[in-house]
Amino acid sequence: MYSVSVRHHAFIAHSLKRDVFGPARKLHGITLIVDAEFRAAALDENNTVMDVVHASRALKEALAEYHYRNLDEIPALACEITTMEFLARRIHERVAAGVASRFKGFLKITARESPEAWASYEGEVPAKRAPKPKRA
Amino acid sequence: MYSVSVRHHAFIAHSLKRDVFGPARKLHGITLIVDAEFRAAALDENNTVMDVVHASRALKEALAEYHYRNLDEIPALACEITTMEFLARRIHERVAAGVASRFKGFLKITARESPEAWASYEGEVPAKRAPKPKRA
Amino acid sequence: MYSVSVRHHAFIAHSLKRDVFGPARKLHGITLIVDAEFRAAALDENNTVMDVVHASRALKEALAEYHYRNLDEIPALACEITTMEFLARRIHERVAAGVASRFKGFLKITARESPEAWASYEGEVPAKRAPKPKRA
Amino acid sequence: MYSVSVRHHAFIAHSLKRDVFGPARKLHGITLIVDAEFRAAALDENNTVMDVVHASRALKEALAEYHYRNLDEIPALACEITTMEFLARRIHERVAAGVASRFKGFLKITARESPEAWASYEGEVPAKRAPKPKRA
Amino acid sequence: MYSVSVRHHAFIAHSLKRDVFGPARKLHGITLIVDAEFRAAALDENNTVMDVVHASRALKEALAEYHYRNLDEIPALACEITTMEFLARRIHERVAAGVASRFKGFLKITARESPEAWASYEGEVPAKRAPKPKRA
Amino acid sequence: MYSVSVRHHAFIAHSLKRDVFGPARKLHGITLIVDAEFRAAALDENNTVMDVVHASRALKEALAEYHYRNLDEIPALACEITTMEFLARRIHERVAAGVASRFKGFLKITARESPEAWASYEGEVPAKRAPKPKRA
Repeated sequence: MYSVSVRHHAFIAHSLKRDVFGPARKLHGITLIVDAEFRAAALDENNTVMDVVHASRALKEALAEYHYRNLDEIPALACEITTMEFLARRIHERVAAGVASRFKGFLKITARESPEAWASYEGEVPAKRAPKPKRA
Repeated sequence: MYSVSVRHHAFIAHSLKRDVFGPARKLHGITLIVDAEFRAAALDENNTVMDVVHASRALKEALAEYHYRNLDEIPALACEITTMEFLARRIHERVAAGVASRFKGFLKITARESPEAWASYEGEVPAKRAPKPKRA
Repeated sequence: MYSVSVRHHAFIAHSLKRDVFGPARKLHGITLIVDAEFRAAALDENNTVMDVVHASRALKEALAEYHYRNLDEIPALACEITTMEFLARRIHERVAAGVASRFKGFLKITARESPEAWASYEGEVPAKRAPKPKRA
Repeated sequence: MYSVSVRHHAFIAHSLKRDVFGPARKLHGITLIVDAEFRAAALDENNTVMDVVHASRALKEALAEYHYRNLDEIPALACEITTMEFLARRIHERVAAGVASRFKGFLKITARESPEAWASYEGEVPAKRAPKPKRA
Repeated sequence: MYSVSVRHHAFIAHSLKRDVFGPARKLHGITLIVDAEFRAAALDENNTVMDVVHASRALKEALAEYHYRNLDEIPALACEITTMEFLARRIHERVAAGVASRFKGFLKITARESPEAWASYEGEVPAKRAPKPKRA
Repeated sequence: MYSVSVRHHAFIAHSLKRDVFGPARKLHGITLIVDAEFRAAALDENNTVMDVVHASRALKEALAEYHYRNLDEIPALACEITTMEFLARRIHERVAAGVASRFKGFLKITARESPEAWASYEGEVPAKRAPKPKRA
C-alpha cells in the first residue's frame, strides 16, 4: 500500500454551542493544520499515487471556504457543532469531490488545533454507496 | 472511521536490565511524549469521538503514576523490561480503564523517547475477551 | 548569559480592521503558540534563572484573558489592531507584571500563528523608566 | 498490535523526467527524512518488536546508498522516476532485506521531502509470494 | 524590540568542492527551510514590523532563483562554496533588496538543511556602508 | 554576524534535591535535546563558521559523559543542582573545550527537556578572562 500526503492550514473562528464544551462554547479561534493522505494499492504510470501538486491544490481549495472565516456565519455550518472530527469529515468530502476525476482510493484527513490535540476522518473516494434498493 | 488524539509527556528514569540493551542497561532517563488516539466508526450526539477534555485528562492521569518517577522503584514494574513498546502497552491498559465508561472503540498509544525513536500499542477498548470456556 | 523558556497556547478569534490586512479584516481565529524566554546574567541559589513552574504559570495566566476569547469583544483590545507583534507586546506586559516580584532581567515573548509566521517582543523586566523630569 | 519506529535522513539530488512534474523535471535536491515503522502482533522475550539499535542501523544502511548522491547517476535508478512513493518502496525493500533474519511482520516506510509533503509504502517482511503457477 | 518572521523552503542540488567537505563534495541535494526574521525598535501605524504578506512574498521571491535548481549550474554561484552560511548570506542580500523600500532594521536569515544542522546570517537593512574614502 | 548550529540528545536521570523543585526532587529522567550554536563575524576560507562535522562531533562528545547516565552518580555533578540552566552551562564548557583549537567566537547552548520548557547558556569561546590581579 502506498500513500502521498500534503499539508495546509486555515485560520478559523467558531463556537461549540453545547454545555459540554465548557469555554469552547464562546466564540474563539484556531489555526487548523490539515493533512490529506491519499492511499492506493498501486502507483500510476508516473510512479505516483496522485500528482502531489494536484493533491496540494485540492486540499488548499477545500480549506479556502473556511480560511479567514467565522464558521458560525457560514450558512451550511451554522447549525452544526463544528468539532475537529466534524471538520475533518467535511474537509474529507470537499477534498474527495475535488480529486474525484483523478483519484480512486482511500483518503484520510487529519485536522490539528494545537500540538496537543487533533482529529481525523478517513474513508473511500468515491464513497461506497449502499446498494440501490430494489423496486417492489 | 473517525479519531481524536491528545498528547502529554512524562519524565521517567529506568534501566533495561538485559545485555542486549547495551548502554541502556544503566539507570538513565527519558522524556516520554505520549499520544493517545481514540478511534470510532461514528460520532456521538456532540459530533465527537470522545470529549477531548476527558481524553486529555485520562491520558494525563495514566501518566501520573510514571511522571517524575524511577520506574525501577515502582513495585508493579520492578521485574519488567520497561521498553517503549512495553510502556505503550501499560499506558494503553491504564487509559483504557480510565475511559471505559465513556468510550468503546480502538485506542492507539504512541510513546516517543526522542525525535528519532518511538513505539506504539493499539487494541480495542474494552479488550475483547476470549469466549468463556463451557462447563463440562 | 542564561535563559529559561516555557510554552503555552491560546485559542483566539479576532479581526484586523484595516484594508491593508486583506482577508484578515474578517473575523477569523488562530491558535497562538506563545514562548516566554527569561534571561539573566547569573543563576540564583537554586541554579535557575527563575523557577520554571512559576515561569510556566505566569505565562498561562497571562494567556488566560485571551484563551477561548474573541479579542474584538475585550474592551481593552476593541480599538486596537491585534497583530501578532501587538499581542506579543501585550503578553510581555502581562507576564512581566506576573513575575515582577521574582524576576529582574530580560523577557522575550514569541507568538506563533502558524508554522510559517510568528512575531516577538522583547524588553526589560521591570521596564526601564525614563528619568523623572526635574521640577522647575 | 505493537510497533517500533526509527528516523534518519538522506541528502539526495534527482530529477523527475516527465512533463507532468513541471519544475521538478530539472535537477534539484531534497532532504529526505525517512521513518521506518516495524509492526508485530507480539513482543519478543526482551519486550521489543525488534531491537531499536538494529532497526536504526538497518534504516541508516538502507539510506547510505542514496545519502550525498545524485540519484540520476545511480545505475539502478537512472531509468526510474524517483518520486517519494517510489523511493519509499525501494527503501522498504532495502530495509526489509537488512532485517530479514531478525524481523517478520509489517514494515511501513514514510519519506518526507518538506514539512508539507510526504509519501509512504507499507508491506509485509518478508514479502508474501504469489503461489507458484502449476505446470501444465 | 519587535520582530516578525516568515518561513519558506527550496529544493536545491549542489556540491561543496573542497576536500574538507568529505561526502558533500559529491553532487547531492537538500531541502533548505529558510526563516526570515525582520526586527525593528517600533511598530508602524498598522501595529506591524512589516506586513507579513509582503515579508512572506519577499522571502519566496528570494528563494525562487534557487528552488528546483542545481546551484552548481547557476553562473553567479558556480565558483562559490555554497555552504548553509554562504546561502544564508546570499538570501539575506536578496530579501534585503526585495524589502528595501518598505523596511529599515535588522534582518536575520536562518537556513536549515536537516533537523540537526542549520546556519544563519544577520545584518542591517539597508547595509551600513563603510565611510567614503577621502580623496587625496 | 554568521552562525552554524547542530543538535544531539542525551538520555539522563537526575534529581533536584531542594524543596523548591517539588516532584523533581525525586529521581526521574529526561531526554535532553541540545543545540550548539557557533557564531562568528566572518566566514573562514571554506565559507563556514566552523566545519559542521566537527561542530556536531564536539557536541556529541560533550554529551557522551551524560548520555545513558544518572547524573546523581557522576562525582563531578553529585553535589550540584543539575537544572537545565546548569547543564547548559556545563555543556557549554565542554563543547568550548572541544572546539578551542578550531573556533573563536560566541557559543550558545540550548537544552530542551520537553516541547514546553528549555534553557540556554551563551558566552565567548575561549572565555574572556578577568585581568590578572597585580602583585603587591
